[in-house]
Amino acid sequence: MDRILATYRVAAPESESRARAEALAAEQSVEMPVAAITDERVLEEIVARVESIRPQAHGFEVVLGIAPATTGNEASQLLNMLFGNCSLQPEVELVDVAFPAGYETNFPGPRFGIEGIRKMTAAKARALTCTALKPQGSTVEHLAGLARNFALAGIDVIKDDHGLANQAFSPFARRVAAVQRAIAKANRETGGNTLYAPTFSGAPAALREQARVAKSEGARMALLAPMLVGVPAFIELQAELDLPILAHPAFGGATRIAPPLLLAKLFRLFGADATIFPNHGGRFSYSRATCLAIATAAREPWKGLRPVLPVPAGGMTVERVPEMLEGYGVDTMLLIGGGLLTAGERLLEKSRDFVRKVAEPNA
Amino acid sequence: MDRILATYRVAAPESESRARAEALAAEQSVEMPVAAITDERVLEEIVARVESIRPQAHGFEVVLGIAPATTGNEASQLLNMLFGNCSLQPEVELVDVAFPAGYETNFPGPRFGIEGIRKMTAAKARALTCTALKPQGSTVEHLAGLARNFALAGIDVIKDDHGLANQAFSPFARRVAAVQRAIAKANRETGGNTLYAPTFSGAPAALREQARVAKSEGARMALLAPMLVGVPAFIELQAELDLPILAHPAFGGATRIAPPLLLAKLFRLFGADATIFPNHGGRFSYSRATCLAIATAAREPWKGLRPVLPVPAGGMTVERVPEMLEGYGVDTMLLIGGGLLTAGERLLEKSRDFVRKVAEPNA
Repeated sequence: MDRILATYRVAAPESESRARAEALAAEQSVEMPVAAITDERVLEEIVARVESIRPQAHGFEVVLGIAPATTGNEASQLLNMLFGNCSLQPEVELVDVAFPAGYETNFPGPRFGIEGIRKMTAAKARALTCTALKPQGSTVEHLAGLARNFALAGIDVIKDDHGLANQAFSPFARRVAAVQRAIAKANRETGGNTLYAPTFSGAPAALREQARVAKSEGARMALLAPMLVGVPAFIELQAELDLPILAHPAFGGATRIAPPLLLAKLFRLFGADATIFPNHGGRFSYSRATCLAIATAAREPWKGLRPVLPVPAGGMTVERVPEMLEGYGVDTMLLIGGGLLTAGERLLEKSRDFVRKVAEPNA
Repeated sequence: MDRILATYRVAAPESESRARAEALAAEQSVEMPVAAITDERVLEEIVARVESIRPQAHGFEVVLGIAPATTGNEASQLLNMLFGNCSLQPEVELVDVAFPAGYETNFPGPRFGIEGIRKMTAAKARALTCTALKPQGSTVEHLAGLARNFALAGIDVIKDDHGLANQAFSPFARRVAAVQRAIAKANRETGGNTLYAPTFSGAPAALREQARVAKSEGARMALLAPMLVGVPAFIELQAELDLPILAHPAFGGATRIAPPLLLAKLFRLFGADATIFPNHGGRFSYSRATCLAIATAAREPWKGLRPVLPVPAGGMTVERVPEMLEGYGVDTMLLIGGGLLTAGERLLEKSRDFVRKVAEPNA
């Protein structure tokens, strides 16, 4: 099988690029001096290859060819081969990865994707809307009340704040039951299809129990931060959950793995159906180009894996809806949390305004 | 209960420090505009507090007081509260954390620690020795042959390379059986106590199966990279494994969480008994001060949690043993992998040399 092509950016003098690239190839495969390896098969089939070196503004870009066999066709070992040891070298960033044909079949990929999520909502040919239940510390009753208003307004997806875990003030089981009931009731009243995505967190046994509760209460989506629960546990849960998964970027790091690679390409490979990312111009510093690259990596045709819904977020406002739709197009879900909650008593009205602006951007 | 005190370094103009600190406090707790929160209890008990701000060379240091209740007393949510969203802000680093009295009882801590590992080896009052089976891609027979030589030389701990996962060329079950058999045989011949630490990897179900195999084959230690398998899965496995755990820093990132905090303090809280870190002057760029701070955080008295064995590694050589012992003292395990393997035919001799230099540093 062809190699996995991993592109790194290395901040080091170009004069050292060959030596640094060879050292990186050893680090990310055999992790020992290559000169001390006598087994021809290991040298030929296992040691990562330096495929190319390209000078850059501050250092150089190197493409390594990593043998698929070294990854054991499994997520934790794939991440190890891509960025295990060299994540500890501050001068190295992982920029992109290309997998050989067929390698993706080792991973689940999105089970629902954009089309699946559209089918579950009333959103046929428009962008989708999303909001969040906050703040943590609120009572279950307060959160259920917020959810009712958001659902009455016709927001497509109501997610838990990713900080709502299984804390004493709103334990998962009680919260999911109450919020889902509030949303289902509002859906019946309006004829709407609002989905609820509770936040899953904790150890593998806790995730399994949360899956049981969420399904029995009728929740139809799930929010998970793969880097917090761990990618292998994320994949294992995805297999048994059979609900669309909204991935959250928390604990994803800022600068060491390129955001389009981690939040879109890899999360897509691992089974996310939608991916939240910090939009430009909000509380985070991703550039517009980075954000558009995330959206592209989430949606572009790739190895037959279903397209993933990009979800720009992080300090967005209803006022920015037209500009965001202009930038991201309709295959997008706009997430506004705090920007609705600040409306206070006018929450329902503000939420309806959000829904209307997304449904009729030119009105 | 008192707050969790989390110290961040923020690269931003000092003139903005108050506003940035308040924004960080909101980001890491309620994740919405604090002004829009009307519930007095949430404002009082949930919103993170800015405890102090201190100017620094390039920006400022801020201590946030995070409410323990928001962490749900569980690892993935603790990491979320400490560094979930702000990991996506490249100007923010997590420097240190102090937990209120009793908070640590929510986590397992080391079950064996330095004393437990000493009891299982012949190393009573000296530093310990460790080496690694490499390279990946080798046959099981080759790895078992290396293990035999290392054990005959009297090395205390033989670990799998952290790149040895469950690949086709040396599947976990066959490898662990063969290597453990080779080490047990050598131990019988020498009267020694060499321990084998196979690398565990993969999804939670795979980890459980590997635990079953390792125990039934008689392996007496385990190597895990918490950031690859996921911290919650690491903790869950620790509870059922009942073997000392050697933590590997792979995928730990270089600069965003201070290494003494992540690799020593947090891994100790989560249950590691020994922690591998890239020593200064090797293939990685940690400073001597950072490395000594890791060793201190691993070993110093802390909340009754057992001291953890620091394991400096990453391009070390037998020639550096005296200097490393001088720097780290006897409650340390020196890990030399490639530095032994480069001896080729003279592997046994070189390994004996390593063992001798550690046992009798002044000989």
